[in-house]
Amino acid sequence: MKNVAVIGYGVVGSGTVELFMKNREAISKKIGRDCEVKYILDLREFPDSPFADRIIHDFDTILNDDEIEVVAEVVGGTTFAYDYTKRLLEAGKSVVTSNKALVAAKGAELLKIAHEHNVNYLFEASVGGGIPIIRPLNKCLAGNTIEEIAGILNGTTNFILNKMIKDQMDFDTALKLAQELGYAEQDPTADVEGHDACRKICILASLAYGKHVYPEKVHCSGITNVTLDDIAYAENAGFAIKLIGSAKLLDGGKITAIVCPRLVSKTNLLASVDGVYNAITVKGDGVGDVMFYGQGAGKLPTASAVVGDIIDCLKHTDRSVMISWDDCYDDSYIVPYKSVENAMYVRIQADNADELKASISDLFGKLTYIERANRPGNELAFITPTMVEKEIDEKLAELSHSAEIKSKIRLL
Amino acid sequence: MKNVAVIGYGVVGSGTVELFMKNREAISKKIGRDCEVKYILDLREFPDSPFADRIIHDFDTILNDDEIEVVAEVVGGTTFAYDYTKRLLEAGKSVVTSNKALVAAKGAELLKIAHEHNVNYLFEASVGGGIPIIRPLNKCLAGNTIEEIAGILNGTTNFILNKMIKDQMDFDTALKLAQELGYAEQDPTADVEGHDACRKICILASLAYGKHVYPEKVHCSGITNVTLDDIAYAENAGFAIKLIGSAKLLDGGKITAIVCPRLVSKTNLLASVDGVYNAITVKGDGVGDVMFYGQGAGKLPTASAVVGDIIDCLKHTDRSVMISWDDCYDDSYIVPYKSVENAMYVRIQADNADELKASISDLFGKLTYIERANRPGNELAFITPTMVEKEIDEKLAELSHSAEIKSKIRLL
Repeated sequence: MKNVAVIGYGVVGSGTVELFMKNREAISKKIGRDCEVKYILDLREFPDSPFADRIIHDFDTILNDDEIEVVAEVVGGTTFAYDYTKRLLEAGKSVVTSNKALVAAKGAELLKIAHEHNVNYLFEASVGGGIPIIRPLNKCLAGNTIEEIAGILNGTTNFILNKMIKDQMDFDTALKLAQELGYAEQDPTADVEGHDACRKICILASLAYGKHVYPEKVHCSGITNVTLDDIAYAENAGFAIKLIGSAKLLDGGKITAIVCPRLVSKTNLLASVDGVYNAITVKGDGVGDVMFYGQGAGKLPTASAVVGDIIDCLKHTDRSVMISWDDCYDDSYIVPYKSVENAMYVRIQADNADELKASISDLFGKLTYIERANRPGNELAFITPTMVEKEIDEKLAELSHSAEIKSKIRLL
Repeated sequence: MKNVAVIGYGVVGSGTVELFMKNREAISKKIGRDCEVKYILDLREFPDSPFADRIIHDFDTILNDDEIEVVAEVVGGTTFAYDYTKRLLEAGKSVVTSNKALVAAKGAELLKIAHEHNVNYLFEASVGGGIPIIRPLNKCLAGNTIEEIAGILNGTTNFILNKMIKDQMDFDTALKLAQELGYAEQDPTADVEGHDACRKICILASLAYGKHVYPEKVHCSGITNVTLDDIAYAENAGFAIKLIGSAKLLDGGKITAIVCPRLVSKTNLLASVDGVYNAITVKGDGVGDVMFYGQGAGKLPTASAVVGDIIDCLKHTDRSVMISWDDCYDDSYIVPYKSVENAMYVRIQADNADELKASISDLFGKLTYIERANRPGNELAFITPTMVEKEIDEKLAELSHSAEIKSKIRLL
């Protein structure tokens, strides 16, 4: 059966076709019947591709072909991809995707359409590349109340922070290296400002808590303000600085979600996740802490997840297998991050900074000062007790009369 | 609907009922209909249990009740459990289990029966406790050719080795502590000799390679011979010693599977897995390396996996969702471990051991000697090049004319 189509023949699309064709015999055996890629939709021609004869330019060919059961949407974006996905699902074809932007923006709606038409909308590749996380969260951990999710969800920023930590490279130099190695885009905004990680934590939070969490409602700060000074203090106190996307269940069934750099204790395995790797920890009331680790991006790792979803769809052509989530425009479900408790790393500058210690300790109650080699006399760094962030801000506002607040980084 | 029954009200059984009842409302929502534990089969009475009224002693009550759709077999063993499972599947009821002994012994047969009766036999809890690994391997990574699986599959031995490494406790003392803390059984054989890990790697290998791998066909050595001397050399050379269950695809589509202590480089995340935790790495031709980490045993973590499987069964009451594997009594599929390539850590004793260095280097070609603080003059430790194990044995047999071979530990 020529039952598979791929929309978008870029990095992930070509990886998907390559991996699918390489393992097609084993895949057919797993499905219990033959399967084959019939169409590859792209605006471009690929005359040198071994699959040149399958390249088409007209979406309707896929839509109107009854033989096509599942379509991999790996074109990205939220315009064409949204329109195509919707029409395919309505036509009774399953869609699988790596498109995190679309799932984060329209997941609830598209899952609902899939459900109504007894087909599947699967997106294992949208978070963590090839790392199995969507299905484990959706199935294996379905018996748990998910208390917390925290993850290194963006390989580019993890690579940059890693270079800063291990090689004392400054941010700009590390970013340039990441661009040279092809890990960062020429416009790195979506990565370094945390928007990419934000989409991913929204997808995970939506799955875990059953209500769509929209990216616009999640506070997001990137790594552009992390300095080598902060890294030195953190290292000295037994922490690595990582960009963490997290979501947490609070009392009363509300949740909080945020993307920001965090000090991660070196006793936490997340601190040991190096280079472009991703890792996601999930805490459930039954399972305790589990962690998922692997390559969070790249051609074949992402294709691995896409092909896995294709197989699942072909095994279940007339049945919705996903546990979906509800749409939710109600803000009150998400507690604003300033009302959530955190401990905070703070670095300040002031003349004769050490003389401020007593008054800062008074301000916060219990406080942990941290050191680094050759700490300048006009600098202090400390970790606050765990308290509501608004209160920390109030105390820091007071402190700002006698010192300049240089850095504030939450602890995980 | 009172559609769930539990067989065995021990640690895992009571955890299963507890977690299911705690999250029952959310679980019913996920399934899309009501669900409830109707029976708990056990030989004992539990008059003080909140579920005392559901305790029954007669298996046929479950078998003959049409309302029961899924049964959690958490009684263990391969006698009653096998008989019950078979009859339940044949009666059109799905079965989920944490029973690794039964899955390792009869998995292919029971999966086949489940398939024939359009029901499910799921066993996420049989490997890695609550860690999602069966479904990720079976579904998410289904598009990959699995090149290798290696895991810390037994928490008890990992705890013991950890105590030996971190606290220089000897094996007997560490085992005693594990028993006191309830991590090890009074008869610790199944754990420390590697039999428990062996069943688990057999299940993973069967899943990954599509043919049943029987425990009797997998070489298995435990940790009872690991000494503090070996640990000191390993540490010094940048390795931790871990009990690893592994399976590997070789040229020509054959596989090898083995359970044994191994020197694991500290650059490998497996080396950082401490205490009773488990971790499993999977290498696929698409996904590269992924790792799954969490609590590999215990009441609620194991229950988490059992309840996840119950939910999946209730969502798919008339459909077999697992990709199953074939039965296989043909030995030739598995390459004997002595014919497989490894690098090997070796410790020897001989008078004036250092004087043997030149001749040992000649024997093996390239060789890496490793040191430890206060190495006795009659001791040498080295790591051989990677070569077929039979050849290493031949060379060591030759060496044994001039030295005593004290330890041999494979590298991962």
